[in-house]
Amino acid sequence: MSTRQVKLGAMIHGVGHGWGEWRHPQALADASTNLRYYQHQARLAEDARFDFAFIADSLHIHERSSPHYLNRFEPLTLLSALAATTEHIGLVATITVSYTEPYQVARQLASLDHISGGRAGWNVVTSWLSGTADNFSKAEHPPHAVRYKIAREHVDVVKGLWDSWEDDAFTRNKATGEFFDRSKLHALNHRGEFFQVKGPLNIARSRQGQPVIFQAGVSEDGRNFAAQNADAIFCRHESFTESRAYYQDLKQRAASAGRNPDKLFVLPGISPITGRDREEVERRYQEAADLVGIEDAIVALGRPFNDYNFSGHDLDAPFPDLGDLGANSHKGTSERIKQLARDEHLTLREVALRFAKPERDFVGLPEEVADAVQAWFEGHAADGFIINSLLPDGLEYFTRYVVPILQQRGLLRTEYPGLTLRDNLGLEVPANRNARPRQDEAVA
Amino acid sequence: MSTRQVKLGAMIHGVGHGWGEWRHPQALADASTNLRYYQHQARLAEDARFDFAFIADSLHIHERSSPHYLNRFEPLTLLSALAATTEHIGLVATITVSYTEPYQVARQLASLDHISGGRAGWNVVTSWLSGTADNFSKAEHPPHAVRYKIAREHVDVVKGLWDSWEDDAFTRNKATGEFFDRSKLHALNHRGEFFQVKGPLNIARSRQGQPVIFQAGVSEDGRNFAAQNADAIFCRHESFTESRAYYQDLKQRAASAGRNPDKLFVLPGISPITGRDREEVERRYQEAADLVGIEDAIVALGRPFNDYNFSGHDLDAPFPDLGDLGANSHKGTSERIKQLARDEHLTLREVALRFAKPERDFVGLPEEVADAVQAWFEGHAADGFIINSLLPDGLEYFTRYVVPILQQRGLLRTEYPGLTLRDNLGLEVPANRNARPRQDEAVA
Repeated sequence: MSTRQVKLGAMIHGVGHGWGEWRHPQALADASTNLRYYQHQARLAEDARFDFAFIADSLHIHERSSPHYLNRFEPLTLLSALAATTEHIGLVATITVSYTEPYQVARQLASLDHISGGRAGWNVVTSWLSGTADNFSKAEHPPHAVRYKIAREHVDVVKGLWDSWEDDAFTRNKATGEFFDRSKLHALNHRGEFFQVKGPLNIARSRQGQPVIFQAGVSEDGRNFAAQNADAIFCRHESFTESRAYYQDLKQRAASAGRNPDKLFVLPGISPITGRDREEVERRYQEAADLVGIEDAIVALGRPFNDYNFSGHDLDAPFPDLGDLGANSHKGTSERIKQLARDEHLTLREVALRFAKPERDFVGLPEEVADAVQAWFEGHAADGFIINSLLPDGLEYFTRYVVPILQQRGLLRTEYPGLTLRDNLGLEVPANRNARPRQDEAVA
Repeated sequence: MSTRQVKLGAMIHGVGHGWGEWRHPQALADASTNLRYYQHQARLAEDARFDFAFIADSLHIHERSSPHYLNRFEPLTLLSALAATTEHIGLVATITVSYTEPYQVARQLASLDHISGGRAGWNVVTSWLSGTADNFSKAEHPPHAVRYKIAREHVDVVKGLWDSWEDDAFTRNKATGEFFDRSKLHALNHRGEFFQVKGPLNIARSRQGQPVIFQAGVSEDGRNFAAQNADAIFCRHESFTESRAYYQDLKQRAASAGRNPDKLFVLPGISPITGRDREEVERRYQEAADLVGIEDAIVALGRPFNDYNFSGHDLDAPFPDLGDLGANSHKGTSERIKQLARDEHLTLREVALRFAKPERDFVGLPEEVADAVQAWFEGHAADGFIINSLLPDGLEYFTRYVVPILQQRGLLRTEYPGLTLRDNLGLEVPANRNARPRQDEAVA
């Protein structure tokens, strides 16, 4: 069976990425440092046969940061704990390339990969908050283009380190005393523009060979990076049309880079809202919308502009001219917002609310949400979705009411096909760059 | 009850710190990346009411590295996984200050501390292998004295970041919308010689306030650092007399630094070997000794000398003159070895075997091992021990046969006194440096 099926990830994010989600009556106000909350969400996703759980991250906070940013688990430690209480679901950690050492990133991800039996993934980010530099003894935050140069080299080094040991390097022969075969240990000897890393790494490859690479590319640099390096892309789109254009663009870039576009999954983040009847759907939509006040929306709008403080601007005047602001932060997203405001002549208030309110595409009765999923999937606007719930029981509703319909339609699996994240996604174990083909293969 | 009791830690180390332990017939040859092995050892230690599990570490390997070094879990990810399947035992991670960012160390340890409900500890090391620099884009390995200067500043920054949030900062008032009290959030604004870190940290303090600090100080710099900064010291001594001298020295240094010496625990690492009768004890001792061949002993001897390769030297000639070698590696240990060889006119072979063979002090019938533990403890040569087993079932034997005797003698607890590592050790929750005394306290 090689029928294309919908890929699903669960974004688990404590008290939520917005400012108001923690105020919902059913919300656990300490969810962002509550292990039981994360274990429960991961179990819901695993019971529904999701491909992976996804943990976002950032490394700089200030007084206007959203509640979840202020006080939360670190992704690698959190996912290692979740590895011990789950069996199948992939575990995707967001880690920046701008403030980390490739050796440490390679090692911690490989360790998570072993701990989880081959279920680790890396969401590669470049960090968009310039204040991060102040926490890492750096004089300045690298410019956007430089961050993507760093990203290319960083990911290259990490992947190279992951191949330090060939899969059959550890002979562990108690009789002869040979623990490993020296010819299957490889130093990297990388000397690049940003990193000098000799290696080898002090951990073997896992059952899935290498962790799966995720990325969120919106800008030109980001799209090219994703097309060349990522196995899956996390994105966000306002409409089917917009998503389909992005999807086609990324698939074309992947093909141009010499890759099989079917092995680069485009996964928009969506916030589905459903209910058992029309009334519950509307009540839940209103609850989610009510969690976003205009004050919060204005603060949230600042995020792609390096946490710009909009509070000095008139809410009902046209969206202000921000010059270059945002170009060295979330470049793609900030440009998209400026464009939208210009094209539709929107006020600051309108832009903020448009940006903050839950989209309507995935709101409806379970059948309707399933229809939307199917339409985006079959219309090649998405290979699947990252479910980013706004309500405390949003993932529970989606898995209980929408997932069974998608399974009945054959769009979702009912059993896991294997043991690793690559198994979940249908990705092959990558060959080790240092392994010579075996004699029989070489002859064939 | 404030009777002084023996502190116990379990060093868990996969296929062992030596070269031959993996060859034991009962050894799991893949133990260093086998989560079930670590879970089993941690459970043995927790069932015996140990204070903590201890994970050693290093960041550089080469062809002559010992099997465990070549391919093992990374400590923070491993301990986070163990946190999910244990309840009481402390979780101590070895992390270097020479190749890490304080913000990241503070954050990952704090995250482990939350995940485990307040059971994290940090074994602060400065890295002794100069080759580590080659994995971290550094031109050179910092000299020994500089590493300790870095250590002081790094630990200061980490502790400062841990106090970013006062314990009652998160008000989480759903009615008013106040998630936190701004007056209880504190930036660090550190600008030092090695690090510039603004803060604040993006995670709160845990139930135990701050992770517990461990250190292994042998050299003059190391001892002073430990006396000033550590809650517990991991050390290694050949005899009661040597250990008592070290113990007294450290306690005096702690007192000189203005600290209560009773709150700095000196914990020698020991490798006890016991059995159900005299014959089993001797058989097990011989098994452990047989795991150390002279080739392995020679490689192991190189370790404190920056992995120096002794293989070119005559085994039966006097211990060679190594000049300054080792002074920028394991300085204290390498000096101790040179001194020993000089004082006792030993050959290279004799030094290597003396250094590698299991010591005899903690070998014997269960009562005898318990006697030795009691003698060192009551004779003020130790506040407790880190059990570093050589045989695959060494921890099992110790916990099954020796621990009950120590419990009967009132030297070990039979139940955990609380929930955190600080509770286990009888250490108070440290006050937050940024918290102003409450009015009633200020008046009193």
